[in-house]
Amino acid sequence: MTIEVIAIGSELLVGVTVNTNAAFISQELAKEGFRVSRHTVVADEPSIIRKTFQQALEHADIVISTGGLGPTCDDLTRNIAAELYHSDLYYNEELGAELEKRYGELYASIKDQAVVPSKAALLKNMVGSAPGMVFEEGGKVLILLPGVPVEMRTMLCEEVLPYLRHRFANSKRFFGQRVHLFGLPESAIDPLLRRLQPQYPKVEFGIYPAHGTVSVQLTAEAEKQQIAADLFAEPLSIIKKEFSANLYDSPSGKIEEAIHQCFIERGWTLSVAESCTGGSMAARLTQLPGASRYFLGGIVTYSNKLKSELLGVSEKLLESKGAVSGEVAEAMVRGLLKKTQSTFGVAITGIAGPDGGTPEKPVGTIWAAIAHNDKPPYVWKFEARGNREKIIEMSVTKVLGELLKYLFTGIA
Amino acid sequence: MTIEVIAIGSELLVGVTVNTNAAFISQELAKEGFRVSRHTVVADEPSIIRKTFQQALEHADIVISTGGLGPTCDDLTRNIAAELYHSDLYYNEELGAELEKRYGELYASIKDQAVVPSKAALLKNMVGSAPGMVFEEGGKVLILLPGVPVEMRTMLCEEVLPYLRHRFANSKRFFGQRVHLFGLPESAIDPLLRRLQPQYPKVEFGIYPAHGTVSVQLTAEAEKQQIAADLFAEPLSIIKKEFSANLYDSPSGKIEEAIHQCFIERGWTLSVAESCTGGSMAARLTQLPGASRYFLGGIVTYSNKLKSELLGVSEKLLESKGAVSGEVAEAMVRGLLKKTQSTFGVAITGIAGPDGGTPEKPVGTIWAAIAHNDKPPYVWKFEARGNREKIIEMSVTKVLGELLKYLFTGIA
Repeated sequence: MTIEVIAIGSELLVGVTVNTNAAFISQELAKEGFRVSRHTVVADEPSIIRKTFQQALEHADIVISTGGLGPTCDDLTRNIAAELYHSDLYYNEELGAELEKRYGELYASIKDQAVVPSKAALLKNMVGSAPGMVFEEGGKVLILLPGVPVEMRTMLCEEVLPYLRHRFANSKRFFGQRVHLFGLPESAIDPLLRRLQPQYPKVEFGIYPAHGTVSVQLTAEAEKQQIAADLFAEPLSIIKKEFSANLYDSPSGKIEEAIHQCFIERGWTLSVAESCTGGSMAARLTQLPGASRYFLGGIVTYSNKLKSELLGVSEKLLESKGAVSGEVAEAMVRGLLKKTQSTFGVAITGIAGPDGGTPEKPVGTIWAAIAHNDKPPYVWKFEARGNREKIIEMSVTKVLGELLKYLFTGIA
Repeated sequence: MTIEVIAIGSELLVGVTVNTNAAFISQELAKEGFRVSRHTVVADEPSIIRKTFQQALEHADIVISTGGLGPTCDDLTRNIAAELYHSDLYYNEELGAELEKRYGELYASIKDQAVVPSKAALLKNMVGSAPGMVFEEGGKVLILLPGVPVEMRTMLCEEVLPYLRHRFANSKRFFGQRVHLFGLPESAIDPLLRRLQPQYPKVEFGIYPAHGTVSVQLTAEAEKQQIAADLFAEPLSIIKKEFSANLYDSPSGKIEEAIHQCFIERGWTLSVAESCTGGSMAARLTQLPGASRYFLGGIVTYSNKLKSELLGVSEKLLESKGAVSGEVAEAMVRGLLKKTQSTFGVAITGIAGPDGGTPEKPVGTIWAAIAHNDKPPYVWKFEARGNREKIIEMSVTKVLGELLKYLFTGIA
C-alpha cells in the first residue's frame, strides 16, 4: 500500500513555516503500520495543486493533503478536488447550522465553509471551521485535512485513523521497533547491522544518529504487529546483547527522557552547573513535562566571578588552572551540590567558540563532572566539534549520555 | 527559474525527524532572491531516489537534495547521482588525506567518503565527513548536500549560496528586505501595508510574526539587488518612520541579537533568574558568540527551595502568594541582582504545563520582572499559549521583547 502526504502552502516554500504536519501524519500512521512513501510541499496555485493531486493518485493508494481548506481567497483545495472528482458543490444545512451555532456573528464571514462537494464524505473539525473531506474512487482514497496543526491533528487522530484502520483492516502493513544506544558512533554499530541484514532478509535495518546517541530501527512488512514482533525477536536480542552496556530506554529516543524516568523511578534529584552550555542542559531537561519531580535547578556561571560567588570556586584555582579545566569542573560540581543539596550534580565548562580557543585548549574542549552525594566526583574531558551551536548541543548530549552511563553502571 | 528541494531519508517518512532542512534551504535561498517551488521527501530506496531526481530535473533548473551521503549502508545518493550522470567513481587522494588527518583512527571506517563521482564538483564539509557534490549538465544543476542539519547549513551558506549567486548572477530573482519590530501586534502594522500596496505595486509586502516581534518583508523581482533596493527605498522609509519607536536592528531577526548588541555597546551586564523557562532564556542569550561580554550568568530555580536558597525569596512569600506571582517575580529579580551585581536582571516564573494549572492561574500564566540597578523593578504578567514547548519559547521571546523596550524607552 502506497501513501503520499501533500502539504499545500506557499509559506512552507519560503521556509517561514516548517512542515511539521507531514511529520505528525507520518508518525501517527507509522504507529498503525502504515508507511508514507512521499511528502510533497507545493504552492497555493490551482494548476500545481491539481497536477500534484493527479500524479499522487496515480502512484498511491491513499493521498492525504493538508492546507488550503480555509475561508480566504487563497484556499483552493476543496474546489480543485471537487473538479477532479467531477463533483458539484452544495450548501450542507447541518454543517451550516453547526457553524452558525459555534461562530455566532462571525458565521457570515465563514459561511462558505459549509459549501462542500457532494461526492465527499465529511470529517468533523472539532477545533476550527473547515471540515475535512474524503473522496473514494477506483479503490483510491483522497483525504483533505486543514493546515492549522491543531485542527489537522485532532481530525487525523479522531477521524482519519479509525477510518483507515477499518478500511484497510486486512492489508499488509509496516511495523517497526527501535533500540536506543548512547556513547557509540554510528560506525561502531553499522558492521553488526551489515552482518544481520542477509541473515534476516525480511527485516530492514536502519541507523538514526543524534549527537552522542544512535537509534537502530527494525522494520518489517506484515499483516499483524505480532508477526513483525516475531521477526524482530532474534536480531533484536543479538543487537541488545552486543551493545548491552549502551542501551537506554526512552519512548521518544531522547536521552533526557531516559534520565528523567530513571531519576523519578529512583527518587533521586538533580541540579546542574553550566558555563559554556549557558543553560542549555537545564533547558533540555526541563523541556519534558514533570521535570520538577526530580530537577531542582541550575546555576549558569558564565563569568568567572559568578563561578566564585555562586559556586564557591576559588579565584586562585580559576587563575592557576583556568576556567576550562578538570579542577574547575570538579570545584563547580562540589559547590553546586553544597548549594542545592541534590542527590546528583553535573557541571560543564568548556570553550564553545568561535573565539577563546588556544593551542592547548582549542575551541570544543569540554571538561565535565558528575557528583553523587559524598562520593568523589567523576571528572572527564572530551572534544566537541562543529560550530558554536553544535558544540553546545553535542556537549549537552554527551554529558547526558555519560550521566546515564554513570547512573546505570556507577552505582546501580 | 525553478528550484526543487528533495530530502532523502526514511526517518523523515516515519515522522521521527521533521524536515527542517527544506525550510532552512528555502529561507536562505529566499534571502538571495531564489524561490523554491517544491519540497519532496522520499525514502532511501534506489529506484525511488533515481526517479525523483529524474522528474525534478525535468521540471526544475536547480535541484538540491539533502541526505544519503554518509558512510553507512543506507546512504545511496552519491552512487545514484553518479549513475544518472554516467560518471565513474574514484578515490580522491586530497579528500582522503584530509579525512585521515581529521578522523585519525576512525578514518578506516569512513574511507569510502573519499570515493566520489569524477563528473561532480566537490563541496567541502567543514563539520562532518561527507563531501557535498554539484553536477551540471544541459544548463541544469543538481546539488547533493548531507542530511545532518549543521553540516548541511554550513555547506549551504559557505559554498552553495556563493556558487548560485555567481552562477545565476544575471537571472531575474526575488529580492527581499526585512524590518524588525518589537512590542507591536500584526494588526497594528497591517493597515499601513495595505495602504502602501497599491502605491508600490512592484513590491510585495508580507508580515511574519514571532512571539512578541514582527518582521515586515518587502519583496520584488529584479535582475540585481540594487534595482530591488531602489524599489524598496520609499516604502521602507515610510514604514521605519511610522514605527520608529519599535524598530530593532538584528541581522538574523532574532531579538536576542538586538539585546546582545545593545548591552555590549553600552557596557552593561545582564543576569537572569528562571523558573518555568528552565534555563531557556540563558541558553538563547548564550547561543550568540561573544555573549560572555555582557552576560554574567543565570540561576534556574526550578524548586521553591532553590528560589529561597539561591535567590533569597522568603518562604513566607512563596507560601502566601505562590511561586507564580508578581511578588515572587520581583523578589527573584531583587535577589538575583544582589547575587550577581549585574546592571540589569530579568526574572520569569510561570506555569508551562501541561499540569500545574488552576482556575485562577491557568497553564500559560507567566509573571516576569526586569530590574536595573537600584530602581524599583518593572513587574508584569502575560499569558502564553500552546503546548509546554511553545509556552517556554514564547515566554522567553516576550520577556526579551519587553527587555528591549525597557532598554530603549525606560532609561536611554
